[in-house]
Amino acid sequence: MRATVIHAPHDIRVEEVPDPAIQQPTDAVLRVLRACICGSDLWAYRGESARQPGQRIGHEFLGVVEETGSAVAGFKPGDLVVAPFVWSDGSCEYCAESLQTSCPQGGFWGSIGSDGVKSDGGQGEAVRVPFADGTLVKLPADAASDDRLLTALLALSDVMGTGHHAAVGAGVTAGSTVAVVGDGAVGLCGVLAAKRLGAERIIALGRHEVRTDIARTFGATDVVAERGDAAVAAVRELTGGQGAHAVIEAVGTEQSMRTAVGITRDGGAIGFVGVPHGSGTGIDLSVMFDRNIALRGGVAPVRAYIPELLPDVLDGTIDPSPVFDVSVGLDGVPGGYKAMDERTALKVLIKP
Amino acid sequence: MRATVIHAPHDIRVEEVPDPAIQQPTDAVLRVLRACICGSDLWAYRGESARQPGQRIGHEFLGVVEETGSAVAGFKPGDLVVAPFVWSDGSCEYCAESLQTSCPQGGFWGSIGSDGVKSDGGQGEAVRVPFADGTLVKLPADAASDDRLLTALLALSDVMGTGHHAAVGAGVTAGSTVAVVGDGAVGLCGVLAAKRLGAERIIALGRHEVRTDIARTFGATDVVAERGDAAVAAVRELTGGQGAHAVIEAVGTEQSMRTAVGITRDGGAIGFVGVPHGSGTGIDLSVMFDRNIALRGGVAPVRAYIPELLPDVLDGTIDPSPVFDVSVGLDGVPGGYKAMDERTALKVLIKP
Repeated sequence: MRATVIHAPHDIRVEEVPDPAIQQPTDAVLRVLRACICGSDLWAYRGESARQPGQRIGHEFLGVVEETGSAVAGFKPGDLVVAPFVWSDGSCEYCAESLQTSCPQGGFWGSIGSDGVKSDGGQGEAVRVPFADGTLVKLPADAASDDRLLTALLALSDVMGTGHHAAVGAGVTAGSTVAVVGDGAVGLCGVLAAKRLGAERIIALGRHEVRTDIARTFGATDVVAERGDAAVAAVRELTGGQGAHAVIEAVGTEQSMRTAVGITRDGGAIGFVGVPHGSGTGIDLSVMFDRNIALRGGVAPVRAYIPELLPDVLDGTIDPSPVFDVSVGLDGVPGGYKAMDERTALKVLIKP
Repeated sequence: MRATVIHAPHDIRVEEVPDPAIQQPTDAVLRVLRACICGSDLWAYRGESARQPGQRIGHEFLGVVEETGSAVAGFKPGDLVVAPFVWSDGSCEYCAESLQTSCPQGGFWGSIGSDGVKSDGGQGEAVRVPFADGTLVKLPADAASDDRLLTALLALSDVMGTGHHAAVGAGVTAGSTVAVVGDGAVGLCGVLAAKRLGAERIIALGRHEVRTDIARTFGATDVVAERGDAAVAAVRELTGGQGAHAVIEAVGTEQSMRTAVGITRDGGAIGFVGVPHGSGTGIDLSVMFDRNIALRGGVAPVRAYIPELLPDVLDGTIDPSPVFDVSVGLDGVPGGYKAMDERTALKVLIKP
């Protein structure tokens, strides 16, 4: 089969690789219907996160079960399923408490385990799924014929659940004033998640009109185009000088975290889901201490959120599909990385 | 009257100062019955927090109302009251939501306001209390004749409420496993607060037997004497390799925060109440991200907690009085600072 492989920074190729096969009785093999490129894939693309040459990449996908191991009870060939961006055994203490990202047997698609076992990435024709029962979530079969819905459901593999994790971490409740730092797909899904949780006012920080237009569609009531100190001043002006109760930090840089701290209201919280790349130095702990600002978030256990969010995607209460603005086949994946890196694409959908 | 004044690092004096008087109709003047020295006063004593020469000091006290301004409705001369370590107007949005430390009209005892007005410190014979109705909490009159109880009630002015804030921030609930970094009075009160909130297991980190003995009295089930990486290893060994759900950080240094992050269980929280002095650099945000560790806390709004904690102190459910191990008159205050700085005293009680 064909799959996406990263050889070096800026060197993404689609190559012929061995077909996936059942290796453990708990495995399933999935034929990928939809995959996509994540903002966090760009850290590897840019060489800021280390990868071994030849490592697979991509961690968001949905598809049809082709084959199951003898111990798989919940799925059968032909089932339409979505995979979260981390697999998990579904049976450990952490999985039981909805923190599947800490499952000791879990792992990231495309990673190389401590035992040297290379896992498949999501940007390919098929994927071997470890711990299928713990990992996958079944989708209604008829969704397969609905192109828009399939795209919306794909967002459950990462960005929608990650935006939701940020909103939960930021403490969004009915009536909250929320500010969102980051106009990427996760930030936009954070807007959508905040709206879904009943936020009354949602301030989206961003200067790219295509993105802020989506933010408004998703529920943003205000857009702040300024950056840095000017952004802090603008959000404070919009909030009677106080800042926002709940702040979503969906970038992960020093500047984005500094902005997040600056725009959080005393007693409020920052839900941080941007993979940290320098954001630690953007934390002024003395300010957070004086103003009782909480920091909560991290890698989102999206597996836990899919059952909660799925009905709302199916009935159209939320539709994250607009975050995908470019669609490619597998051959278009390298170009998709380039487009996202250059910010000419927001999020690239892959139809293998 | 006589009060404690800081002239320079390590230069604490007890001097004759003007008697406090009503300046605003919302003021009260309080005769101090009990005061004490706080671990955070040591930051000023050591010159690590700036003070102007001649500034008053001390922020924990209880006493008897001597005089009230014309607008004070809730108190009359003769009332026994306790003051939280921050005064607050009791009428703003932040006070209404129990975040009195963010009250725009609030302030710290001994501070110099942006208008140049110097406030009294708690380590003296009397104190002018701004916004008496918003700030003070009435105590039963008969407590004045109960020396042990009076000492226990004094802890409500700061350390008991701060320990409780840390426990709440760390997410302590019934059945929690808690670890406490810091064997000072706040850390010990954190143990007591965690016990009160139903923690099943409480691991106190400390190597001073006098202090860890108090920790055990307060409810600690385990004591870890190691420091740094060895402490992290010891706590992990005690917790099946996982760490503690709830971690109280009651020091504020880089090492204490690093230890706190290291001993927190995935998905857990650090309640931080140690005034940050380098602790920001102890935060490894990537670790917190990967393991979904939350950070929550800050300067404790103890005014909000006094009504909740007071009944439990009055009926003996909790007794924080053992954190005071040395008692002095006003003349003994400079020696009290020295003793606490040298760690020969845990917390010094002052009977003016």
